[in-house]
Amino acid sequence: MSDMSVVINARMVAFVIHALAVVVSVMVFVWSISYRGGFAWESKNKTLIFNLHPVLTLIGLVFLGGEAIISYKSLPFEKRVKKSIHLVLHAIAIILGIIGIYAAFKHHNEKHIPNLYTIHSWIGIGIIVLYALQWMYSIIVFLFPRVSSTLRSNSLPWHVFLGVFVYVLAVGNSVLGFLEKLTFLEKSGLDKFGSEAFLVNYMAIFTVLFGTLVLLIVFSKSPPTADEDNFSYSAI
Amino acid sequence: MSDMSVVINARMVAFVIHALAVVVSVMVFVWSISYRGGFAWESKNKTLIFNLHPVLTLIGLVFLGGEAIISYKSLPFEKRVKKSIHLVLHAIAIILGIIGIYAAFKHHNEKHIPNLYTIHSWIGIGIIVLYALQWMYSIIVFLFPRVSSTLRSNSLPWHVFLGVFVYVLAVGNSVLGFLEKLTFLEKSGLDKFGSEAFLVNYMAIFTVLFGTLVLLIVFSKSPPTADEDNFSYSAI
Repeated sequence: MSDMSVVINARMVAFVIHALAVVVSVMVFVWSISYRGGFAWESKNKTLIFNLHPVLTLIGLVFLGGEAIISYKSLPFEKRVKKSIHLVLHAIAIILGIIGIYAAFKHHNEKHIPNLYTIHSWIGIGIIVLYALQWMYSIIVFLFPRVSSTLRSNSLPWHVFLGVFVYVLAVGNSVLGFLEKLTFLEKSGLDKFGSEAFLVNYMAIFTVLFGTLVLLIVFSKSPPTADEDNFSYSAI
Repeated sequence: MSDMSVVINARMVAFVIHALAVVVSVMVFVWSISYRGGFAWESKNKTLIFNLHPVLTLIGLVFLGGEAIISYKSLPFEKRVKKSIHLVLHAIAIILGIIGIYAAFKHHNEKHIPNLYTIHSWIGIGIIVLYALQWMYSIIVFLFPRVSSTLRSNSLPWHVFLGVFVYVLAVGNSVLGFLEKLTFLEKSGLDKFGSEAFLVNYMAIFTVLFGTLVLLIVFSKSPPTADEDNFSYSAI
């Protein structure tokens, strides 16, 4: 849709986004360490292996992924610098995501729980595959010098649409994960209105708020400025 | 973002959208009737009251809501006709959504299950409140003849952003609902890889696909045509 952008001060919104990422990251560490016993890669207490999963996927795919998406509008650098930051942050996001997903499988395998029976796991596999494919395709199209500018221009709206699609799936899937884990715990006796239940549900709400503000920046434009060319939001 | 629209044939995509809505509607009826025992408003079998909830919220907020969103691009009528269809479909969506949510509370109350302890319920309340507020505000801004065209132009990007926001929440929350219900059933002994589990998970996948295609139409443009003015995608 041409000219459907909301007009906002992207740097101000980005500040709220950074703050939310820090707050929810602290919350997920508090949850994993104080309520769920901490982390381990090898342990007889298999819960400690699982605990790596929400921390890595949330901080990787949702928070670093979100920061990567808004980097064109949130950072005061030249376009070529922001382009590098965009792709490096996404690369770190994918790596953390893969390790986080691996931790979930490791937990299942060592505890003899079947794999891939929930919609959370199905969507999660879809996300990491699409995320990695999108990253590789975009490296070729937007970084290789020989690619024609026509192909870049034609690819950009699809790059944005598919990127937003995968990102919305990642945010939504983290909420699915919170719900799933909390439902398991409540079925095992956890108080439905206790402090842990509220902590997890508020993490989910704040994660949705974070993702919403990221997309607000994507679909926004700033009032025009003199240095528009250097600071424009474009991967071309 | 100006000029970030993907170029697609909206009428073709809309055809797939209608087909998906029919397929998943049939699936949710099959699930509710053949696997879960059918429907009732008053019954000693409280499950029959609950069964109204997924059918009404999914068909209302997700499918009719989605059809309302794409109506500007999917229907071959004049703009004023499409505007009426847009607001009437959203009104029906809201009414079905309210009855569907009421059925969930009724089921909880009659079975003495606590209300509003899950993230699915919290987000659901947020959706129906925002959906209704957005509808009422939009009726005033885009329908009342006395409103200035400047206010309409300025409101339109926010109308689209908030509408897409609430719609993504509705699609995501239906997936949360499927996961929650299936987790409850599996904890009570339902086969994790049985036919019902696959039916519910595929409903969730198809619902996400439906929502994705709706948003593809929102963020698309068609090649220009001679009758562009009458058929443009604009609420103004």
